[in-house]
Amino acid sequence: MDSFQVKTSKKAEVLDITAEVSRRLKPGSLCTLFIPHTTAALTINEFEPNIKEDFERFYSSLVKGRDWKHNSVDANAEAHLLSSIIKPSISIPIHNGSLALGTWQKILFIELDGPRTRTVNMQVIK
Amino acid sequence: MDSFQVKTSKKAEVLDITAEVSRRLKPGSLCTLFIPHTTAALTINEFEPNIKEDFERFYSSLVKGRDWKHNSVDANAEAHLLSSIIKPSISIPIHNGSLALGTWQKILFIELDGPRTRTVNMQVIK
Amino acid sequence: MDSFQVKTSKKAEVLDITAEVSRRLKPGSLCTLFIPHTTAALTINEFEPNIKEDFERFYSSLVKGRDWKHNSVDANAEAHLLSSIIKPSISIPIHNGSLALGTWQKILFIELDGPRTRTVNMQVIK
Repeated sequence: MDSFQVKTSKKAEVLDITAEVSRRLKPGSLCTLFIPHTTAALTINEFEPNIKEDFERFYSSLVKGRDWKHNSVDANAEAHLLSSIIKPSISIPIHNGSLALGTWQKILFIELDGPRTRTVNMQVIK
Repeated sequence: MDSFQVKTSKKAEVLDITAEVSRRLKPGSLCTLFIPHTTAALTINEFEPNIKEDFERFYSSLVKGRDWKHNSVDANAEAHLLSSIIKPSISIPIHNGSLALGTWQKILFIELDGPRTRTVNMQVIK
Repeated sequence: MDSFQVKTSKKAEVLDITAEVSRRLKPGSLCTLFIPHTTAALTINEFEPNIKEDFERFYSSLVKGRDWKHNSVDANAEAHLLSSIIKPSISIPIHNGSLALGTWQKILFIELDGPRTRTVNMQVIK
């Protein structure tokens, strides 16, 4: 298993980690990315400045304005709830030595309770 | 990696692609499906006419009626947002040479910005 | 492929199945969990009593109060809709013989139409 760090700079933000993953890609057939966090998530989508802001507003809209019980313990229930539906893992086929991503697809790290230093784990299957 | 095409006929629709995946299944232990698109998604669920319509209404209800910034560039922000939570990938165990799907489980291609010709990539791990 | 059963006791509840998965883990590099059900889902997150209740309220809030067509056939449309976005599968890297889970990460079985006896399938890739 390979790992790298991501530094996030805001409470909630979406970061493009495609280059870091591609640089560390080992030969194989399937690359599984997995983050060991419960208040962040991984996905794949387009990444341009407008949609970046839409992602943040969209995720927030799904959970905001309610009196979550976990917030009496730690003020990040919204982050846990979103992480539980978007999830911390994604698997991408490898084709001819590269990630088989489409033209507009970027691997996105979704910070939901930053800023923090986060870890991304990579497991390549032969 | 194996691939096949899916033709969608509406702006938003859910299609059952189980038969196409099963027909192309090679021997192995795990089948990962991955679509190289950012305005569609993959899932697994039951597929009968009533639930098909419910899926389309449900996904739309999560994103509709808001002024997404990406729509100033390209009028499909809703499709990107939904694709980013449902995601473009799913892994299914293979057991005795077949996909280990439950009685009611079908592999579903979710078109969110059609009609288009779409690609489904399949990677089988030994 | 290995399998085990989970007994759920309520209509909707979230159960921690980490210990059952760890106990059955075989040597390898990637563990894929897959449930053969269309009215339940799998995820990974923290599991403490407050957030457990928040999960149940959050999922319900996304689908409730609408007149789903599938409910004319079988009164569990909400469970199908939630299962279709959270999905029945999750892949976790194996590192030094153990699941590479973070400090707060637990593997969670999400029952959406119980109580039932459910199956969890595990496929470990070498």
